[in-house]
Amino acid sequence: MTRPSNRTASALRPVEIVTGFSHHAEGSALIRMGGTEVLCAASVESRVPGFLRNTGLGWVTAEYGMLPRATHTRGDREAARGKQSGRTQEIQRLIGRSLRAVIDRKLLGEMSITLDCDVLNADGGTRCAAITGAYVALALAIRKLQANNILKADPLIGQVAAISCGIYEGIPVLDLDYAEDSNAEADANFILTAAGGIIEIQATAEKATFDEAAFTTLLGLARTGTSALFAAQNAALDAA
Amino acid sequence: MTRPSNRTASALRPVEIVTGFSHHAEGSALIRMGGTEVLCAASVESRVPGFLRNTGLGWVTAEYGMLPRATHTRGDREAARGKQSGRTQEIQRLIGRSLRAVIDRKLLGEMSITLDCDVLNADGGTRCAAITGAYVALALAIRKLQANNILKADPLIGQVAAISCGIYEGIPVLDLDYAEDSNAEADANFILTAAGGIIEIQATAEKATFDEAAFTTLLGLARTGTSALFAAQNAALDAA
Amino acid sequence: MTRPSNRTASALRPVEIVTGFSHHAEGSALIRMGGTEVLCAASVESRVPGFLRNTGLGWVTAEYGMLPRATHTRGDREAARGKQSGRTQEIQRLIGRSLRAVIDRKLLGEMSITLDCDVLNADGGTRCAAITGAYVALALAIRKLQANNILKADPLIGQVAAISCGIYEGIPVLDLDYAEDSNAEADANFILTAAGGIIEIQATAEKATFDEAAFTTLLGLARTGTSALFAAQNAALDAA
Amino acid sequence: MTRPSNRTASALRPVEIVTGFSHHAEGSALIRMGGTEVLCAASVESRVPGFLRNTGLGWVTAEYGMLPRATHTRGDREAARGKQSGRTQEIQRLIGRSLRAVIDRKLLGEMSITLDCDVLNADGGTRCAAITGAYVALALAIRKLQANNILKADPLIGQVAAISCGIYEGIPVLDLDYAEDSNAEADANFILTAAGGIIEIQATAEKATFDEAAFTTLLGLARTGTSALFAAQNAALDAA
Amino acid sequence: MTRPSNRTASALRPVEIVTGFSHHAEGSALIRMGGTEVLCAASVESRVPGFLRNTGLGWVTAEYGMLPRATHTRGDREAARGKQSGRTQEIQRLIGRSLRAVIDRKLLGEMSITLDCDVLNADGGTRCAAITGAYVALALAIRKLQANNILKADPLIGQVAAISCGIYEGIPVLDLDYAEDSNAEADANFILTAAGGIIEIQATAEKATFDEAAFTTLLGLARTGTSALFAAQNAALDAA
Amino acid sequence: MTRPSNRTASALRPVEIVTGFSHHAEGSALIRMGGTEVLCAASVESRVPGFLRNTGLGWVTAEYGMLPRATHTRGDREAARGKQSGRTQEIQRLIGRSLRAVIDRKLLGEMSITLDCDVLNADGGTRCAAITGAYVALALAIRKLQANNILKADPLIGQVAAISCGIYEGIPVLDLDYAEDSNAEADANFILTAAGGIIEIQATAEKATFDEAAFTTLLGLARTGTSALFAAQNAALDAA
Repeated sequence: MTRPSNRTASALRPVEIVTGFSHHAEGSALIRMGGTEVLCAASVESRVPGFLRNTGLGWVTAEYGMLPRATHTRGDREAARGKQSGRTQEIQRLIGRSLRAVIDRKLLGEMSITLDCDVLNADGGTRCAAITGAYVALALAIRKLQANNILKADPLIGQVAAISCGIYEGIPVLDLDYAEDSNAEADANFILTAAGGIIEIQATAEKATFDEAAFTTLLGLARTGTSALFAAQNAALDAA
Repeated sequence: MTRPSNRTASALRPVEIVTGFSHHAEGSALIRMGGTEVLCAASVESRVPGFLRNTGLGWVTAEYGMLPRATHTRGDREAARGKQSGRTQEIQRLIGRSLRAVIDRKLLGEMSITLDCDVLNADGGTRCAAITGAYVALALAIRKLQANNILKADPLIGQVAAISCGIYEGIPVLDLDYAEDSNAEADANFILTAAGGIIEIQATAEKATFDEAAFTTLLGLARTGTSALFAAQNAALDAA
Repeated sequence: MTRPSNRTASALRPVEIVTGFSHHAEGSALIRMGGTEVLCAASVESRVPGFLRNTGLGWVTAEYGMLPRATHTRGDREAARGKQSGRTQEIQRLIGRSLRAVIDRKLLGEMSITLDCDVLNADGGTRCAAITGAYVALALAIRKLQANNILKADPLIGQVAAISCGIYEGIPVLDLDYAEDSNAEADANFILTAAGGIIEIQATAEKATFDEAAFTTLLGLARTGTSALFAAQNAALDAA
Repeated sequence: MTRPSNRTASALRPVEIVTGFSHHAEGSALIRMGGTEVLCAASVESRVPGFLRNTGLGWVTAEYGMLPRATHTRGDREAARGKQSGRTQEIQRLIGRSLRAVIDRKLLGEMSITLDCDVLNADGGTRCAAITGAYVALALAIRKLQANNILKADPLIGQVAAISCGIYEGIPVLDLDYAEDSNAEADANFILTAAGGIIEIQATAEKATFDEAAFTTLLGLARTGTSALFAAQNAALDAA
Repeated sequence: MTRPSNRTASALRPVEIVTGFSHHAEGSALIRMGGTEVLCAASVESRVPGFLRNTGLGWVTAEYGMLPRATHTRGDREAARGKQSGRTQEIQRLIGRSLRAVIDRKLLGEMSITLDCDVLNADGGTRCAAITGAYVALALAIRKLQANNILKADPLIGQVAAISCGIYEGIPVLDLDYAEDSNAEADANFILTAAGGIIEIQATAEKATFDEAAFTTLLGLARTGTSALFAAQNAALDAA
Repeated sequence: MTRPSNRTASALRPVEIVTGFSHHAEGSALIRMGGTEVLCAASVESRVPGFLRNTGLGWVTAEYGMLPRATHTRGDREAARGKQSGRTQEIQRLIGRSLRAVIDRKLLGEMSITLDCDVLNADGGTRCAAITGAYVALALAIRKLQANNILKADPLIGQVAAISCGIYEGIPVLDLDYAEDSNAEADANFILTAAGGIIEIQATAEKATFDEAAFTTLLGLARTGTSALFAAQNAALDAA
């Protein structure tokens, strides 16, 4: 088997995380994974949704979008069509859950942080890139809240990154690009913590069912991939 | 640990599948798993969505709904609110994918089968019950198409069932009910085939991350649970 | 003339009212009139819409829906289409008005009761069945509120049932089924009280106008039909 | 009893029908009934909705609207709110049915006529005024189609008018204005033909149920009222 | 060049302003400019939008609509389609801005005045006619508020009117009607005050760009046109 | 007067135009004007909207959006809210008109080009930056169509750029940034061609009306500003 990109089965695409791209956001990160580019911006508000009022708990949520021409052929603009697709809602719910898993909402207190993840260019793996980039934007926003003495204690209790893996021409491979993603037998998204815990797994057979052995191999690849992503996140945060 | 229902960790709730509840549908199944009841109806149409026209391929899709008072407190009617929630769309996309995984769409030909899965009473596990019941409705509809010589060959190439598992008070348990689901540390949905293949896994940490060992235990429980569900499906189909 | 169902002109279809079908509702009734099945669930809330706040008056309202495959051919899911049809809104407004006519809203106090009427199988007369079933669900919910000492006095000041009549092949007949309804020259819905009062009449010429004599015959048939429905309602309430 | 307007129980308000108010419509009528003013415009199109294509049958339909400040206090603009209310849809469905009842759709052929009924000033009885005015607009549009040899035979097979009656302070009265309508014990809309036939009856108890005797009196009043309306329609058509 | 209406380049169409057309509005004006008729109604409410609460400032806003058959061929009803077009929103924003420019919002205090401008018949220039008519409705509403001692000081600090001009067959002309508007090389809307100030200019090349000299001629024509409109407004207000 | 940015009255902000930012678009330009950044992407499709089919004419249109955190405080995501604001629609209509003014639609033939203009960072003047950037994206897309022999003749018949000017603290100034825009007495957008023609002018009094002399000064500033923008466009196109 040869991957379309000529990468080895366990090779990640080049990763780059640029902070500060959004001038006004409390934290922001433009993440590039090969041809995929996602702009992640964290916005802090000093109020919570109705169901959390007077609970002492904070909220972290996410919204996801894709510029109409982030893709090979132009897609409809969701704002013009008047609704977000099921796919969009599914992805933004996933991003929100993943980030809430590394936040102590009691320490955050009654504040909200919204992560806007907008895909500027798409080449596969946009939801995983969004989670990995949003972690950096979130960490920067929290750093700013602490620097301004708005938060006393750090509510960030873990580090999260995400990567897709899949079975392509019978071989488990790491970090699918679009050419692979659209032809894979199975694909899976792993959201993991730097401490080794699993936050979420979504594994889907596309052309054929898969077995537990294949699944275990994919999880191993994901651990390899997220190790590199954790390092890239930390480098970006150190440089910011 | 004692489960709220006093079940053992690997005990399924009582399962009952009643066929023919919908008078007009080409196939239907009312599935009861404990206090959860989902009415699944298969509707056949002799045309496919635009993107499949003239491809020779058929389509299987699903829609999911919940009666406003299927739950402990009344929920908004989605038709009145004017849109389906993200949760609803996520679930109906999952049901559709799961059933397409056991259909040879070339053998189906340019026909569509829509599975309407409507929750009449909810007590946890509605999406898994919907998949398990929808398989029966789908199989009955296909049986009818073959009986009427509309289909020559059987496009059903597998048998699918789904079950949720979770970690409740530190212990992996099978088939979460609502009382467990709302307090579990982690929950996972497994969509498996009778041949032993994995169609889809969705595993989510709710209160704490989990590790590979716990995940493996959950998968084992799911295999136990789906064995019983495959038998219940077959019994219902034999009796129909 | 022979009716498609071979019934005599003044024969009602078999009526069955099953209470408690919805596990969580304060009151519920599954009503079957021949092939028509409607699940009616009453939900109590301790607040009223804005226009009634601080008036001391309660509110009773209804929502109506039809499962997509309740009908011979599948209909669109209103939640997916993003809006309720004019027909749906017209019916749910009628159900709400009919039930408010037998409630003393001052005795109810500032509470709301919502009647969800969902058609599981349709064979004509769904709006009338919904009203007849919703009365039972409403009465059960009020019984529960009195049993729990939330209501001191009984706000139910009348008993309501509804039946359709029509002119089919020139003859006035009682309780149209779908085969008759789609071919009737005229059809009418009568919402009557057990005390003999008229709550609402909707009479519509479909193929030819009708005269006062025909109308009077239809009203007579409706009195016959609702007598049987009042008895069925009382039997269901006695047994609950 | 004294009516707020000092009219006798069987007195209609002054009626005026002005044709040609809409410059571009194929037929139009501005109807005034006391303080109620409705502009009715008929638009002809040479195509029918999808469900009628290739059936040889024509279509007549209606849309109803109310200017935001037609009423005592300003109402929301439905276009701004993004949907038509249930009341609006109910009314426009009624207008459409009423006019279709006097059209031979085979003689009309595959053409559509849309009646736009827009309330410029509201003082009760707007739906009945809309029907009465829309008949004139429709008749003018058909006259024009015949004058232009687009229609050979006249598809208008009857004359329709509508009037509301009600029980006000215990007395049946004709043609409720807003002051009466908002305080009536019961109100009813009668859509009748000049030939004496009944097209539609909608009778609703508002504060108390009513009996057959009262209903019969209301129907008698309605016959009186529509006689005058038929004359006013004919005078307007003769003068046009 | 001959204008389709045979008017000279600087001739306005006949202008008529009828007050009191809307029975219930605090102020209203039906303005006719040739074949264009717009009904403008002012509604006063004693509250302001959220962003102005507790600022001491009032609000003036506008909504614009067109009856479906105001035009040569019937247009969709925006309420039925479920949204206002971009054109509608653009126009109503313009009307609102134009009127706020002649209101001292501090003197108005925390009250809202909404101007509903509904086009009954369209023959070009509807947005300009709406502004000119809305000024009269607004002035009448304010006069009433002063007469009722609700307002002490007059918040009306200017007089506004609007007129379209355009380049038609190479010649700058005043007050385009539909026949000209749909064939003009350029058209421009001028919103001017009686004191000679410019509130807003919108000038658009339709078929060819234009130069500063042409623009200056258009502005001159607009001053001529609005002089006549200011007089017509004052005459209507004096007569009311 | 000192401008918040310390610029002189006739000084433009630094302008930068980067081509190729969107990997998949037929043409793209990221334009920066000071702190304002707009990504403009041109998408070509080989079909036209219904109203142009079989006319031989092409279509150029635009859509505009703003990332939620492009602004100082986060704005709602229009896709989540379910509709585009009036402001958004007004802007995208303006961009589309401006670009169509420099296209010979007959030479383009029955093809569509959509310009997506998405604001990544906002600091005033986003609609003007969008027009200036969209011209570059459009020119690149046309260059590509010519290089691929899809277009024989060049349909680009002019060069367009846009700039805002305004009256700030009594002084006419060029290229308002956000700090100025939100406090200006008047602001105006000028869309001009390199050949000296006017495509569109929108001038609005915000706090006080303005006169013809002030307007003339603003137009002069705009000519200065667009000269620099035309040069920047040409440099970016030469380098691409």
